[in-house]
Amino acid sequence: MIKIQREDFSIDDVINTMKKRSIGGFAIWLGVVRDDNIKGLRITPIDLTEKVFNEIEEEAFKRFDVELIKIIHRIGDLLIGENLLLIVCGAPHRRGALNACTFILEEIKKRFPFKKEEIPKGV
Amino acid sequence: MIKIQREDFSIDDVINTMKKRSIGGFAIWLGVVRDDNIKGLRITPIDLTEKVFNEIEEEAFKRFDVELIKIIHRIGDLLIGENLLLIVCGAPHRRGALNACTFILEEIKKRFPFKKEEIPKGV
Repeated sequence: MIKIQREDFSIDDVINTMKKRSIGGFAIWLGVVRDDNIKGLRITPIDLTEKVFNEIEEEAFKRFDVELIKIIHRIGDLLIGENLLLIVCGAPHRRGALNACTFILEEIKKRFPFKKEEIPKGV
Repeated sequence: MIKIQREDFSIDDVINTMKKRSIGGFAIWLGVVRDDNIKGLRITPIDLTEKVFNEIEEEAFKRFDVELIKIIHRIGDLLIGENLLLIVCGAPHRRGALNACTFILEEIKKRFPFKKEEIPKGV
């Protein structure tokens, strides 16, 4: 499931919606805004945003032994240290979860379907 | 930092104690008790528990470009779906965090410094 949203998220809340008896573990990636001598990032969706995320999720389900996927990407003005991206992959066994999570992260970085602007210091 | 504890944990709370301006992301593993036709697991620490975890953490810091590591392993009687293990690795860039997290997980599985008993159904 994919959400492109302005609001912050709680990892605990997301995990609680994904708990199932067959799941042995969750591989999770939390991307945050790093201090690259900026004030923050302005992330704006583009026409292709949802489509690209759906393609990435579908591909991950095809390739890996993963049972549940949840991806949340935030948009808007995000300051240093704020949460930017959450990927959660739940699977019976660790390999499927870990491989799916890494794959999704790499694909998002590669295809990055947003307009990204740096917000300079002093603004 | 390593904690061997009975109590459950909040991933959000753990992450909040680890946020730093230099960190770009956190690779996280959440292991839970899977339904293998059991009621749950009884995890008991052994003499070597803390030592093994300290060695694994130290080795991860040596091998990977990772800035912050937090590992929590629960002990006691844990039922299906309950949180068992949390590994959080924070780094400026994703490779260091992802590689450290996978390494720590594999080492914990390999060296598993606990007594582990299945709690059968109907108990």
